[in-house]
Amino acid sequence: MTITTPDPSRLTATRALALIRSNELTVETYARSLLSRIESRDETVNAWAYLNPEFVLAQARKLDAVPFEERGPLHGLPVGVKDVIYTKDMPTEHNSPLYKDSHVPVDAAPVAILRAAGSLIFGKTTTTEFASTTNGPRTYNPHDPSRTPGGSSSGSGAAVADYQIPIALGTQTGGSTIRPGSFNGIYAVKPTWGAVSREGLKVYSLVLDTLGVFARGVEDLELILGVFGVKDDEVNGGGGTAFQGVQGARFGLVKTSVWPQAGPGTIAAVEKAAAILRSHGAIVEEIELPPEFDNMPAWHATIMAVDARTSFLSEYRRDKSKISKHLTGYVENNEGYTRVQHLAALDGIALLRPQIDGIAGRYAALLTPSVPDEAPVGIQGTGSAAFCSMWTALHTPVVNLPGFQGENGLPIGVSLVAPRFRDQHLLAVAKELGKLFEEEGGWKSSL
Amino acid sequence: MTITTPDPSRLTATRALALIRSNELTVETYARSLLSRIESRDETVNAWAYLNPEFVLAQARKLDAVPFEERGPLHGLPVGVKDVIYTKDMPTEHNSPLYKDSHVPVDAAPVAILRAAGSLIFGKTTTTEFASTTNGPRTYNPHDPSRTPGGSSSGSGAAVADYQIPIALGTQTGGSTIRPGSFNGIYAVKPTWGAVSREGLKVYSLVLDTLGVFARGVEDLELILGVFGVKDDEVNGGGGTAFQGVQGARFGLVKTSVWPQAGPGTIAAVEKAAAILRSHGAIVEEIELPPEFDNMPAWHATIMAVDARTSFLSEYRRDKSKISKHLTGYVENNEGYTRVQHLAALDGIALLRPQIDGIAGRYAALLTPSVPDEAPVGIQGTGSAAFCSMWTALHTPVVNLPGFQGENGLPIGVSLVAPRFRDQHLLAVAKELGKLFEEEGGWKSSL
Repeated sequence: MTITTPDPSRLTATRALALIRSNELTVETYARSLLSRIESRDETVNAWAYLNPEFVLAQARKLDAVPFEERGPLHGLPVGVKDVIYTKDMPTEHNSPLYKDSHVPVDAAPVAILRAAGSLIFGKTTTTEFASTTNGPRTYNPHDPSRTPGGSSSGSGAAVADYQIPIALGTQTGGSTIRPGSFNGIYAVKPTWGAVSREGLKVYSLVLDTLGVFARGVEDLELILGVFGVKDDEVNGGGGTAFQGVQGARFGLVKTSVWPQAGPGTIAAVEKAAAILRSHGAIVEEIELPPEFDNMPAWHATIMAVDARTSFLSEYRRDKSKISKHLTGYVENNEGYTRVQHLAALDGIALLRPQIDGIAGRYAALLTPSVPDEAPVGIQGTGSAAFCSMWTALHTPVVNLPGFQGENGLPIGVSLVAPRFRDQHLLAVAKELGKLFEEEGGWKSSL
Repeated sequence: MTITTPDPSRLTATRALALIRSNELTVETYARSLLSRIESRDETVNAWAYLNPEFVLAQARKLDAVPFEERGPLHGLPVGVKDVIYTKDMPTEHNSPLYKDSHVPVDAAPVAILRAAGSLIFGKTTTTEFASTTNGPRTYNPHDPSRTPGGSSSGSGAAVADYQIPIALGTQTGGSTIRPGSFNGIYAVKPTWGAVSREGLKVYSLVLDTLGVFARGVEDLELILGVFGVKDDEVNGGGGTAFQGVQGARFGLVKTSVWPQAGPGTIAAVEKAAAILRSHGAIVEEIELPPEFDNMPAWHATIMAVDARTSFLSEYRRDKSKISKHLTGYVENNEGYTRVQHLAALDGIALLRPQIDGIAGRYAALLTPSVPDEAPVGIQGTGSAAFCSMWTALHTPVVNLPGFQGENGLPIGVSLVAPRFRDQHLLAVAKELGKLFEEEGGWKSSL
């Protein structure tokens, strides 16, 4: 058994798995390279809420002892898990004093699926409190530690960008996966709502919560969503047309009603993305969504607040002094939302879901901002979900593609959106566009 | 401290709490009376998946030691919990060999809320496998042990009917709360979807799953939903008109497209319910729902199957030999559901939710069957959810009211339905109607 890669921590998941499969890399060697990277960088990035190197190595050795013919499709793949997701062999603390040292000995459904496929569940990544506030954990943007890595999946985004782990799980209720994807210059997918089980994830909003996945390549996202069983209809089953490449493809550029919040970095990134696509023979049409879509930010905020009122009642009743004012405000309904407003938001968005499917279905994908701009300075706040929340509520799949940069040289991504349950199609498009943007977008990771 | 009630197990929750509050009943005495009832009846009914009498009594004594001024609104109230709902001090086995002896040391959100209010979490009640099949657990209908108590909340329904516990929690994805409510001759509520947190409940369907509550009086349901924070808008906020009593009230009788499945017992029960209401001065109008509602059974089945495909993938991947064929069939999509069909069901039902709110809002409540007929003979099957599944998918609150009987003298209930988030209003109506049906419906429990 020889190690041909000087530093396996730089590998994508797909490449590392190929080397493990061909017996050129052991799981233990791979794990050691990640642990070594983490050791050298942890003080600067601080992405981990829980990590036990000895336990990781023991698991790795166990995986190395499994005969090749008994190995699953993700055999030996290290995965970081946001600390609002249950892992049977680690604590789950939700960044909340109410759950200090809480250890729930079951795997959340996505973790169980990854583990059954052979994944090495590596450690828990930092999160804002219950993935439900915008107050950052003590995690720094690996590209510039004076800035936030975004949130609420702060540690997952930062660790993947910093080569500390190839794959990490997050969640998204507003923009908690796509935003850290953009701020950290990596790929991130929020699949269609309902496509991946949320069992064992902390609940913030029944209607909005979605599992997210971070990686450094679209192939890796395809791999993970494949293992999660996310599957489009056959094209002939009515699910749209297959993507045949950028040349001649049509893209819809959607600025949305929150476009005035876009800063110079995002404006430039979206323009450059469109220009790159056009230069490769694609048709990029700017679309004005019907005016009902202008209600989306307010409707999303209503649903999130009203659902949170239900979701955090149990913690509130147990000990409201141990949850943040932001969350007690939800439970006490400080904004005074009525059920009539709540139902108007639920039913209004439900009407727009098939509409956006119809609109997005006329294009290879919709192109839209991921974030207002580069990651803001400071780690107290994790940034704005303004450009993400609409798609979360519409239940469409979204991918963040990195490749662009802001005025301070930090990464900026753009989002691609497809109709619901066209996740595989979206990733196929993202794979092509990701390559173009990495090559021509103007930003490269210097990590 | 004197015990004025010869047998506290016969008390409703509301009455027992009043006696505890006035120091006429200790929690320990109350718990002992329930344990004694269980001991004498358990061989016949078999409602408990887990029950540790010593632990119950230890908890009861702890509760008795709490000073009166520190007690919560449910201080000392014994509650049974369906064994798909996490309880921090008991195993949660889901009636599945995959979860034999599984002990998750956190409370599901509803359990945490009840415990914080002073409840005595008593034991776990039987369920079908993951609350997701219609193969009964080994639980018998207390009114006739040759028959099913219904399911999937089999133990909760049977234990409340049999005076083994005053309150029990269940779940409903098709008819798993309302059906055992009807078969056991007790009150049961399925609140509006989203009104009570489902965190810590096994997931069957993201879109359908709802917590349910069983009791022997509507006051008890009001009490529990009040503690859960379920609250209508103020009437002037647009949430409809207040209920002023049966005299002059309007009720909509909805037979639905599955009416041909109603047997003689249900036909007679619905007719008698309407006759009783009319004899008390109410107006009962038969309503024909718009034809789109005829799609509800197929749409409900589609969503349940497709959601289950996602929900049970983790168990399937862990060990598909340990889950039933019914569930592997979901995961393998044996019915061949497409995403196009799935979205048609999701979006079709979403359109009907505000429609049914509008229709139901014109009445004090809708009156509709709970079940096809009396509990069927045998405990292999738990009966049909045909009359329940539509309301589950529409997210409306539903209450089962007992009081009627079938050809074999077994209980039959009828359902009342109100618009979404009019749960308190619905219970206010149910309280009045429940009394009338108990007095004039013709069925009395002989337990």
